[in-house]
Amino acid sequence: MLGLMQSRPLLVSTLIDYAATCHGGREIVSRDPDGIIHRTDYAEIARRAKRLAHGLQRLGVGFGQPVATLAWNSYRHLELYYGVTGSGRILHTVNPRLFPDQIRYIINHAEDAYVFFDPVFAPLVEQLAPHLPLVRGWVALCDAAAMPAVKVETLLCHEGIMAAASEDYAWPQFDENTASTLCYTSGTTGNPKGVLYSHRSTILHAFAACAADAFGFTARDSFLMVVPLFHANAWGVPFAAALAGVKLVLPGPRLDPKSIYTLLQEEGCTTSGGVPTVWLNFLAWVEERRAQLDLSRLKLNRVFAGGTAVPRSMSAKFRDLLGVYLLHAWGMTETSPLVTAASLLARHQHATPDEILDMQATQGRQVYGVELKLVGAAGETLPHDGQAVGELKVRGNWVISGYFKNEGGQVTDPDGWFGTGDVATIDADGYVRLTDRLKDVIKSGGEWISSIEIENLAVSHPDVFEAAVIAMHHPVWQERPLLLIQPKPGRQPTREAVLQFLAARVAKWWLPDDVVFVDSLPHTATGKLLKTELRARYHGHLAVSG
Amino acid sequence: MLGLMQSRPLLVSTLIDYAATCHGGREIVSRDPDGIIHRTDYAEIARRAKRLAHGLQRLGVGFGQPVATLAWNSYRHLELYYGVTGSGRILHTVNPRLFPDQIRYIINHAEDAYVFFDPVFAPLVEQLAPHLPLVRGWVALCDAAAMPAVKVETLLCHEGIMAAASEDYAWPQFDENTASTLCYTSGTTGNPKGVLYSHRSTILHAFAACAADAFGFTARDSFLMVVPLFHANAWGVPFAAALAGVKLVLPGPRLDPKSIYTLLQEEGCTTSGGVPTVWLNFLAWVEERRAQLDLSRLKLNRVFAGGTAVPRSMSAKFRDLLGVYLLHAWGMTETSPLVTAASLLARHQHATPDEILDMQATQGRQVYGVELKLVGAAGETLPHDGQAVGELKVRGNWVISGYFKNEGGQVTDPDGWFGTGDVATIDADGYVRLTDRLKDVIKSGGEWISSIEIENLAVSHPDVFEAAVIAMHHPVWQERPLLLIQPKPGRQPTREAVLQFLAARVAKWWLPDDVVFVDSLPHTATGKLLKTELRARYHGHLAVSG
Repeated sequence: MLGLMQSRPLLVSTLIDYAATCHGGREIVSRDPDGIIHRTDYAEIARRAKRLAHGLQRLGVGFGQPVATLAWNSYRHLELYYGVTGSGRILHTVNPRLFPDQIRYIINHAEDAYVFFDPVFAPLVEQLAPHLPLVRGWVALCDAAAMPAVKVETLLCHEGIMAAASEDYAWPQFDENTASTLCYTSGTTGNPKGVLYSHRSTILHAFAACAADAFGFTARDSFLMVVPLFHANAWGVPFAAALAGVKLVLPGPRLDPKSIYTLLQEEGCTTSGGVPTVWLNFLAWVEERRAQLDLSRLKLNRVFAGGTAVPRSMSAKFRDLLGVYLLHAWGMTETSPLVTAASLLARHQHATPDEILDMQATQGRQVYGVELKLVGAAGETLPHDGQAVGELKVRGNWVISGYFKNEGGQVTDPDGWFGTGDVATIDADGYVRLTDRLKDVIKSGGEWISSIEIENLAVSHPDVFEAAVIAMHHPVWQERPLLLIQPKPGRQPTREAVLQFLAARVAKWWLPDDVVFVDSLPHTATGKLLKTELRARYHGHLAVSG
Repeated sequence: MLGLMQSRPLLVSTLIDYAATCHGGREIVSRDPDGIIHRTDYAEIARRAKRLAHGLQRLGVGFGQPVATLAWNSYRHLELYYGVTGSGRILHTVNPRLFPDQIRYIINHAEDAYVFFDPVFAPLVEQLAPHLPLVRGWVALCDAAAMPAVKVETLLCHEGIMAAASEDYAWPQFDENTASTLCYTSGTTGNPKGVLYSHRSTILHAFAACAADAFGFTARDSFLMVVPLFHANAWGVPFAAALAGVKLVLPGPRLDPKSIYTLLQEEGCTTSGGVPTVWLNFLAWVEERRAQLDLSRLKLNRVFAGGTAVPRSMSAKFRDLLGVYLLHAWGMTETSPLVTAASLLARHQHATPDEILDMQATQGRQVYGVELKLVGAAGETLPHDGQAVGELKVRGNWVISGYFKNEGGQVTDPDGWFGTGDVATIDADGYVRLTDRLKDVIKSGGEWISSIEIENLAVSHPDVFEAAVIAMHHPVWQERPLLLIQPKPGRQPTREAVLQFLAARVAKWWLPDDVVFVDSLPHTATGKLLKTELRARYHGHLAVSG
């Protein structure tokens, strides 16, 4: 028997409608690349989003057609978030920091009808345009006076489109499973793959993000959006903020510590979110200037960080310098992204400050709406005991069922579990600790050895500058760990000394079968170890000891 | 184009699964009618809910069949919440305080297969059973030792059913629009009507209830559930609490101030919710004993109240005595119930304590997920300006589309708006203030006059004990207000004196056309003015002045 409740589609347009009706005057503050502050509010964002919907119609962008952005965090980018999706088109946020070749691939693959870009990206646009035959026009996110000189066939002005369009528009109603936004993941191997979010997944994710133990947004909050709008929907913040009536502060491209500090203080920000690198710089800057700064003027009380693991010391510094709780959260583009958040449990009321920092160093515990499981080398489900190490699998309403255009084929098992490619433990309270990437783990005789843990131990040896652990082929154990070491300048550690050092610190069967000393280790453009190259070179390495 | 995200049904079973997995050890504390405390946790509630599902199967209760409860707040009632709904059956919570005739009507109308009852209701069950031919069995919520002597054909023991059933059970998957719970509204006229909630509406409502500006539940909270489980799903708390990992404290039938105080203190409750009457008694009791009580041992920081309007003085007393924020919330059985909650906005950071109390005296502002509108006498949509008075209409995913078995016919307009029967204003910030019931409002020449406002003014006259304002027929204005007054003992106010008193305080056209003095006014069993009777008697009253 069916219930007798209304069943209205969960649409992104209901978020901006709600914010406009109930928090219409709540500010949206943007800082442009020149540092100039622009102020608007939810009511105006809603009106302009409707104008934009009309504008897209006039440009002939059909229902379900993707529109790309190459833009920093600004109110114009935010109104694209609502105008494009609310009218049933797809917002494709492109990361302008990717290599131009990747951007070209992505925009072609997505078949974007138009590209909306910040004037600062004019040179990039000029470089891309000749290779993007499917793009019908390029829209500069500015007014007529600020129009950049760009040699492209069809150059349009965003404010021109807006001025010509009416704001008298009713959001269309459609199936809540309709696509809303599109984001490509930039994996280390292969072409980027598209994640196509739906209106339903976006709304459910926004609800989960607003829970008190996740973002915990209230109508009193002011959020500095350090995380870019092109990074997994800025973690869903544009949607969650509208749901709760949060003031948004959009910092544009400048994320240096001083710019962040100024906005936090002047806009009364209570909360913010961004990747650890930004916060590392910020905290170092604050610490240096502690004597000069009047920290009591900051209203900041909690900050979210994710994207890469958050060091324990960062949580300590946020606490000690600013009295701020650092919420370590985890997820992927493929998971919308929120899966876990390191919030406190009741038992932490009696925990020591150190125990709380330990907890904050985990990726956090699962939010309601997604399910987690750990799967061992033989496909068996492992216990949540904080010890068992397995691949982390996830399923739920904001987890992908497949990539755009079926790239990569079937990505979930028949029960819907998506393999994250991360290796982790989960403790009895549900806190997840990522220990390695699945592709980097050493599969030795049906058991897994974490490459990262051995690397971390190896670099604590006084003679070691950097270390990499990769799998080498073994006739009996399938794989065994091989340790590659770049010594510190002038130091000459021996194989035996390093192994002895490790033997005191890891289980016997984790001990690398051999150590190779190298002059340098290869890295990706973003500074990560390039293990694919190391594996290609050393997979067949024959250990001195068998 | 459809998104490529998973679309898993939103089912109530996912809530208890989540709580069992991520908050398995979080306590569920019950106090039975004898004051004995029972402790269990989410993991055990989940296991027992699965046992119950098996038990229902053995009893031959089919998918979609309703099962009734006549029970106070206890862990057994809570496991029925999950076991019955999770397995695809319908939980019908019956208010045991209704007249036996109403209960009989409701259980017959719902076609409940079994009735689970607290032993304390044995006499009621014996009285009801002969009139309920469709009920196949009566299940006492106790163990064998506590079984009451009840003369019914089939008497079963809850713990007996549980003991015989296995907990090895996988929740079935089904359409999220499937019915989950059933609650009857007891209107003042006509038969009670059933509201049939769905799994989807329940999950979406739980998400909204957990938002930081609504219940704001965290995993550190301990909630004393004063609101009964048979009252609109206890405002959705059983579901919201599982979503957030909240400790639940279930007080059984005893809601006297001392019992409440003891539980709040001993179970470290941070929050609670119940109707204003309970809190009025509680606050008076606390105030009297302030000197003896060690109030610093209470961890209570916020309390929700609703069901009837919350007096301003109650918010003040909660604040002054206990440092507690009283969240005035509003909704109806037909709206799951949460529609509005009186939480703070950013602008209240600069508000005076008095302004905050004023805000807390409103019904609050709309939560995301429901829409509100005000409709005037001629069907026109009215502005949200805090002045315009109209009928409050609501729509959204947790608002009914119709009553069970289509009682009352079509209850929404073609756009899905449900008329609440309440008359209200909405201010620019979205705060709703209920001013009257639609049936009590006086429709004078296309404008509305609030009966309640005139009554409140009239009783502030020193000679007036109680007042009622009803509509009397008028040839030109259709309706005009008639004021009925019961004077204070020994006082003899005159018509002229009362009207003069009012004239200084209301708009001229609101002034009653006549005043009638009576010895007493008729009331319902729950103490409300019985205006139907007054209207029947006085609708044709001829005013002295035309």
